[in-house]
Amino acid sequence: MRVSELGTVAFLGGTGAFGTSLGWRFAKAGVPVILGSRSQERADAAADAVNAKSGGRVTGMLNAEAAAAADITVIAVPWSAHAEVLKPLHDALRGKLVVDAVNPIGFDHRGAYPLHGWEGSAAQQAAALLSESTVTSAFHTVAADLLAQDGPLDSDVLVMGDDESAVATVCALAELVDGVRGVPAGQLRNSQAVEALVANIIAVNRAHGIHAGLRLTGLPEN
Amino acid sequence: MRVSELGTVAFLGGTGAFGTSLGWRFAKAGVPVILGSRSQERADAAADAVNAKSGGRVTGMLNAEAAAAADITVIAVPWSAHAEVLKPLHDALRGKLVVDAVNPIGFDHRGAYPLHGWEGSAAQQAAALLSESTVTSAFHTVAADLLAQDGPLDSDVLVMGDDESAVATVCALAELVDGVRGVPAGQLRNSQAVEALVANIIAVNRAHGIHAGLRLTGLPEN
Repeated sequence: MRVSELGTVAFLGGTGAFGTSLGWRFAKAGVPVILGSRSQERADAAADAVNAKSGGRVTGMLNAEAAAAADITVIAVPWSAHAEVLKPLHDALRGKLVVDAVNPIGFDHRGAYPLHGWEGSAAQQAAALLSESTVTSAFHTVAADLLAQDGPLDSDVLVMGDDESAVATVCALAELVDGVRGVPAGQLRNSQAVEALVANIIAVNRAHGIHAGLRLTGLPEN
Repeated sequence: MRVSELGTVAFLGGTGAFGTSLGWRFAKAGVPVILGSRSQERADAAADAVNAKSGGRVTGMLNAEAAAAADITVIAVPWSAHAEVLKPLHDALRGKLVVDAVNPIGFDHRGAYPLHGWEGSAAQQAAALLSESTVTSAFHTVAADLLAQDGPLDSDVLVMGDDESAVATVCALAELVDGVRGVPAGQLRNSQAVEALVANIIAVNRAHGIHAGLRLTGLPEN
């Protein structure tokens, strides 16, 4: 799949560490990127900062405009804002490819633990709210801190979804990040495990002061 | 940790592919192994088969006798038998280290999906039923077919538990398998993600006709 076939990628909640660092990776690869926000001012500031690193392919917009303008929309909002941000975007995202990257994780004195919404996973909640979009789930286990650096990642991106073609597109998108392999890893209903696994990875990260990645072994070489 | 410090390891439901193959790996490493079963006859047959490969360290017993005789007990029963097998073993396992390796996974025409019991995970159900044991969770993502072969695994074993010393012991146990690294990966409440991730791995396995393993990247070398 050529980069030009992917179209424009928007991030909802794109001004955070994840959206700006993955957006930068995509922009470097030649993808037009929109960083969406609830605030035009914050969106512009984030876009300017990424453009200063990558050279002009990034635009800041309000979330609703970003969704309307994008071919692929990555959900990068905090879990607490997930439903509220998506509900008004049902029509803007109709017929489009959506990638849910949200990790519903809580923290207490014992560490990180998964939060389970009514639908079972963030991605399934997105599919329920965006009933006319093609929803996939990906990018849960890649660390923003590593994306923000200029080196290759030693990580697979597990991609879940019910539409094989959409999953293949998201794998291609993931593989724009140096070192990343996109791996189709089940239906959308299998997203919960990967979202929740982030809590385990946080436990490992805290024990070692690192940003651990995830690899599946034993897959055939491409 | 020396192998002799681990003591005797029993498998509940140890006559299946997982118990016999992991039991064989442990026996090869010098650990006395008990394969437990509901049937003394099946336990004896499984022990004989493993001894024919590994040279005499494996005994077959009824599950209750296996639990009573073991220092470390690995739960390897099907999820459907999990509660029923554990309930009568509360006293036999009092004060002992238990490793839950059960994956609550269902299958339908769309593939594998996680089953969630009342307690959230098999390991938490074990902890609820064995309230006076030290319950950990491990070995979910290692394929019995690869354990049964005579080569190194390219896999980490994520070990969850609330007792650091118990988790360290289970990591040492896991590392008796050539190629395996034991990685403490959160509290017992973080077991669900890893149990459920088996459904994702099954999806990958089916797509490629393989037995995928799991590695975390970025950890410091020991």
